[in-house]
Amino acid sequence: MIVVSLKTAAALVIGNEILSGKIGEENLVVLARVLRPLGIRLQRVVMVEDVIETIAHEVRSLSATYDLVVTSGGVGPTHDDVTVEAVGLAFDAQVMSHPHLEAMIRGHYGSRCTEGHLRMALVPTGASLETTESVSWPTIRMRNVWLLPGVPEIFRLKLGVLRENLGLAGPAFVTHAVYTQMDEGHLRPLLDAIVAQFPDVEVGSYPKWHHDSYKTKLTFDGQQPAQVSAARDAFVALLPEGEPQDYSE
Amino acid sequence: MIVVSLKTAAALVIGNEILSGKIGEENLVVLARVLRPLGIRLQRVVMVEDVIETIAHEVRSLSATYDLVVTSGGVGPTHDDVTVEAVGLAFDAQVMSHPHLEAMIRGHYGSRCTEGHLRMALVPTGASLETTESVSWPTIRMRNVWLLPGVPEIFRLKLGVLRENLGLAGPAFVTHAVYTQMDEGHLRPLLDAIVAQFPDVEVGSYPKWHHDSYKTKLTFDGQQPAQVSAARDAFVALLPEGEPQDYSE
Repeated sequence: MIVVSLKTAAALVIGNEILSGKIGEENLVVLARVLRPLGIRLQRVVMVEDVIETIAHEVRSLSATYDLVVTSGGVGPTHDDVTVEAVGLAFDAQVMSHPHLEAMIRGHYGSRCTEGHLRMALVPTGASLETTESVSWPTIRMRNVWLLPGVPEIFRLKLGVLRENLGLAGPAFVTHAVYTQMDEGHLRPLLDAIVAQFPDVEVGSYPKWHHDSYKTKLTFDGQQPAQVSAARDAFVALLPEGEPQDYSE
Repeated sequence: MIVVSLKTAAALVIGNEILSGKIGEENLVVLARVLRPLGIRLQRVVMVEDVIETIAHEVRSLSATYDLVVTSGGVGPTHDDVTVEAVGLAFDAQVMSHPHLEAMIRGHYGSRCTEGHLRMALVPTGASLETTESVSWPTIRMRNVWLLPGVPEIFRLKLGVLRENLGLAGPAFVTHAVYTQMDEGHLRPLLDAIVAQFPDVEVGSYPKWHHDSYKTKLTFDGQQPAQVSAARDAFVALLPEGEPQDYSE
């Protein structure tokens, strides 16, 4: 068994608009898909309302437990944007206006600049501003906590900064899928055999409710490509004649 | 100030397929939208991997803190379906085959019934089976924890059972929206005034990144319809000429 380094991540989604069902959450799936090729595993997600103490408590706890924490939401200039203040509270760091950020904001808004706009220059003391060549507007990072905006288009843009700054943390996760017409009740003993034989491969089973082309999708995931392929092949060898239906990706 | 009863809820989303980004989460937004007309506020969401001890820990904690807990995922017959066992562990309740559920499963699968299928008859001791006239396949409830499947179509179906069994817990949440061409930096002082004047109304501000018809959407939420309307109207009265752009629900 090859021991691989495991880097872990957690996400904190902040905002009443998500928990009230006003809008659907769209950022987690792209975050996970950016992290996995870097060898980073998203292990926990928490969604909370716009309450400073609640956010601070989560940030403190997640930051201490996971290698990387990404927050989504609450970084604008209005009363319901309390993420920066909460992250400050989490680390007992005072919030202050960052001169570089303030200059950028004043430059951007010119004579239309308001006190509200200048709130976006606030960062916890000790935070750093992360940029890349293509994304020059800074992203605030406080220790292992990255503060990303909740607006999906900007979240995606900032993920590029995160990816470039993090680099490869470990072997990328690879995944293979097999599609069958069998139901989970019949698949169970076959899957149990594969799970026992390949302890380093994660095996998932996902039934489709209104199926046309297949009934159950099986996935094989891991950081050791040869093991993952071997598990997939061993599973396919156990299937009855006529299966699998598809065998791609 | 009218005091309204506040019922709270939390959701626990279970499954490696969500955290690995294989599929996007689709159930939370519909859960929130079912709960709010019942006067129930979804206050916290946690997403975890398919690990019994992790799930059990969350179930115990959420169940003690919120009036209602809804879990999504992990109730099928394969090795990665561990929610029932985890809920049992959370409440120190042994997992046993429920005679009624077992009979239904045997009746459904007939001679094709496997040990795998029969795993779906397992419930924590003390759990009850919830049904409605239109959804006769039972949903497992353990105290204030409802175990719903993760497959979106079935999750939606089961939400009907939840809604019918819960009934109205308090005044429904109402929401009004106002759309403007102003940016958040300019809106901030106006919003601060409304927030101070209407402590029982929740005011949200949501910028649109690629805007055509509007730049910022403002929302006014609460359980007292007259207060919510008054806050919305007071905000509109503060807007400069030519605003708002739209003024609908």
